[in-house]
Amino acid sequence: MSRRIVEMETYDIRFPTSRELDGSDAMNPDPDYSAAYVVLKTDDGHEGHGFAFTIGRGNDVQTAAIGALRPYVLGRDADDLGALYKEMVGDSQLRWLGPEKGVMHMAISAVVNALWDLKAKRHGKPLWLLLGEMSPEEIVDLVDFRYLSDALTPEDALRILRKAEPTRRERIESLRKDGYPAYTTSPGWLGYDDEKLRRLCKEALDQGFKQIKLKVGADLEDDLRRFATAREVCGPDFPIAIDANQRWDVASAIEWVTALKPYNPHWVEEPTSPDDVLGHAAIAEAISPVPVATGEHVQNRIVFKQLLQAGAISYLQLDSARVGGVNENIAILLLAAKFGVPVCPHAGGVGLCELVQHLAMFDFVAVSGSMEGRVIEYVDHLHEHFADPVVIEQGCYVAPSLPGFSAQMRPASIAAHLYPDGSVWSGS
Amino acid sequence: MSRRIVEMETYDIRFPTSRELDGSDAMNPDPDYSAAYVVLKTDDGHEGHGFAFTIGRGNDVQTAAIGALRPYVLGRDADDLGALYKEMVGDSQLRWLGPEKGVMHMAISAVVNALWDLKAKRHGKPLWLLLGEMSPEEIVDLVDFRYLSDALTPEDALRILRKAEPTRRERIESLRKDGYPAYTTSPGWLGYDDEKLRRLCKEALDQGFKQIKLKVGADLEDDLRRFATAREVCGPDFPIAIDANQRWDVASAIEWVTALKPYNPHWVEEPTSPDDVLGHAAIAEAISPVPVATGEHVQNRIVFKQLLQAGAISYLQLDSARVGGVNENIAILLLAAKFGVPVCPHAGGVGLCELVQHLAMFDFVAVSGSMEGRVIEYVDHLHEHFADPVVIEQGCYVAPSLPGFSAQMRPASIAAHLYPDGSVWSGS
Repeated sequence: MSRRIVEMETYDIRFPTSRELDGSDAMNPDPDYSAAYVVLKTDDGHEGHGFAFTIGRGNDVQTAAIGALRPYVLGRDADDLGALYKEMVGDSQLRWLGPEKGVMHMAISAVVNALWDLKAKRHGKPLWLLLGEMSPEEIVDLVDFRYLSDALTPEDALRILRKAEPTRRERIESLRKDGYPAYTTSPGWLGYDDEKLRRLCKEALDQGFKQIKLKVGADLEDDLRRFATAREVCGPDFPIAIDANQRWDVASAIEWVTALKPYNPHWVEEPTSPDDVLGHAAIAEAISPVPVATGEHVQNRIVFKQLLQAGAISYLQLDSARVGGVNENIAILLLAAKFGVPVCPHAGGVGLCELVQHLAMFDFVAVSGSMEGRVIEYVDHLHEHFADPVVIEQGCYVAPSLPGFSAQMRPASIAAHLYPDGSVWSGS
Repeated sequence: MSRRIVEMETYDIRFPTSRELDGSDAMNPDPDYSAAYVVLKTDDGHEGHGFAFTIGRGNDVQTAAIGALRPYVLGRDADDLGALYKEMVGDSQLRWLGPEKGVMHMAISAVVNALWDLKAKRHGKPLWLLLGEMSPEEIVDLVDFRYLSDALTPEDALRILRKAEPTRRERIESLRKDGYPAYTTSPGWLGYDDEKLRRLCKEALDQGFKQIKLKVGADLEDDLRRFATAREVCGPDFPIAIDANQRWDVASAIEWVTALKPYNPHWVEEPTSPDDVLGHAAIAEAISPVPVATGEHVQNRIVFKQLLQAGAISYLQLDSARVGGVNENIAILLLAAKFGVPVCPHAGGVGLCELVQHLAMFDFVAVSGSMEGRVIEYVDHLHEHFADPVVIEQGCYVAPSLPGFSAQMRPASIAAHLYPDGSVWSGS
């Protein structure tokens, strides 16, 4: 049976979220959530969808970068996924543009994720289950261990996966029954007033979320007041994380978090540059026992490796669409398991919840084997544009049951949000 | 007098260097040296030229990224350089594509460097001299200290610059008289046979170069033989550096360099991933006293800061076109001076020698104030395409005297090498 990739389409899709101040934080005052979107089609009639998430300007560049991968993809066997991944990441000329970071790496991520969406659909399974039923040897084969061997070897990875293997089936059943716990960032955007914050905190509790998160870092007086407000609504023990979106240098991070310490932050997220491993380590040491979390902007497995080696993070925030797609994210899940650090994925934006739930569930089934201290971020925006949107029940992600990676956007949503000619932008 | 930027042109320029195996190394077997090239024009008739260097595929994406900066640049006052730099780097939407790394950051670099070329031309001075005559306060104003304050403050920077200020004039004169020492990589490409290596080593000595460099990392037996050959030609004390172009993991770097140690490497360059600060530090400790050098792929000042903080490098290899242009490179020169690490810039490719000589000379005049242990890389390729090509005399870069940043390519070279329609590519 043939399954050659015969077509690759790209779309520059943007949602005018800045009009509502949804998603506003200390570094991103007016994002227009966007997707540089790719559709792969095979000659046996299947489609794989994937995307890189951006927040507006530059989404055209991101889309062009995906388009530049067309020669690598067209004519290839869709099952040749592992080879294709390594070829794109390792291409000697393309890697000059990174290596393994930024626009070109996110483009590879979009294509790799589309290949996985395609594969899961062809196998008739949701991605988390497809991955969760692969053998430890098959999973290890998906990983590029280059630059990891001082922290994680293929033998380490096999050991981790084999330990979880005998009990996979019960965790698959538990996921189908109870889902995976979520936390919500919806109350905490900087653009919201205190009344809205209070109301949304209450709603989060009522909806059964396990944690909330507040954006901080623009103004300390505001943050103290907003944190006090949230604490008052949520009670003294409810987990409230704070997120500075890279706003601080090392000293200001320490000072600011120390001021917020009385409100008992569950973690402080992105206190400084995602590139600053040593900075994160210095902050973590100084603000202990407040845990540090980061990951949504961490460019690849090599930086995650160092964050773990340096003891700089207590929570690893996997992102589904920044590093080199599913394959590199499996490497990162294995690294986290090796260092015993829980993965609490980043989500939100457009479609990031849809994608990352599969990775967290795969982690639970086949890698860490645990939900302890783990929650997936949830933001209640833009799900209506997806063919298989996430479902939240009792504050938990319901395990996806449809085949694929939940990456597919609805055709009408794509058409309306094409930039700059879709009706949402042209007004026509 | 008006000096508004009224036009911005971009060009995808590629040289078919892979046909000759020039520039072949362990990671880059067949590069086509390329420039994503930008020309800014003002309404008073001046032009600024700049480019991002790539090695072939993806140069279209890089050119598109530069094009995406058009709205930031058009209509702006060319003297508004500092503000424009901070605006592009800090743009909340664009920075999602990095932040400050990869394709988008290199695009900003190209535009910032073109603005400096323009400014230097309008002032009628070569860039190294224009910068070298600015006051310490003006220089500090060019720098974005975000994420640096744990290692370098504006006060630190002022102290460094003020210390060098009284003796600037004598160093300007010494540069004009004797130039700046160079080393050559031309003998050491992997694609050359031993006979060619021997001949080119001899030529390098005859031409007065202060150091040579060999590419290593593809095959240890070959490397041992090639290093022995070069050592035999150059004598026991001549500095011979080795360059692995990121080929190794930590353990294999240590093993490989240890095997080459008897030939006394002057430094080992890019032993592993440019993202791996802790890896570089571990390698440096294990192979001591062989010094570690890196920088051509280091994405920004934040990673350089950490390499210095961790004691991971003994030589810092500045690249003119990867980080955010002249402004960020000044931050990096200041960091190196603060930590007392000599800067030995990366060059080669297309136009990198032309650009980086200005930064090394500025460093000598106004920042480190020293040439000790410092050499600029030199590769004798593609200079004929530049309007103001580098000149090497007695193994030294001659200080440029024409106004600008030496960034301007000759119109005929641009036309012939446009990809894919220039005569070199279309064969027409």
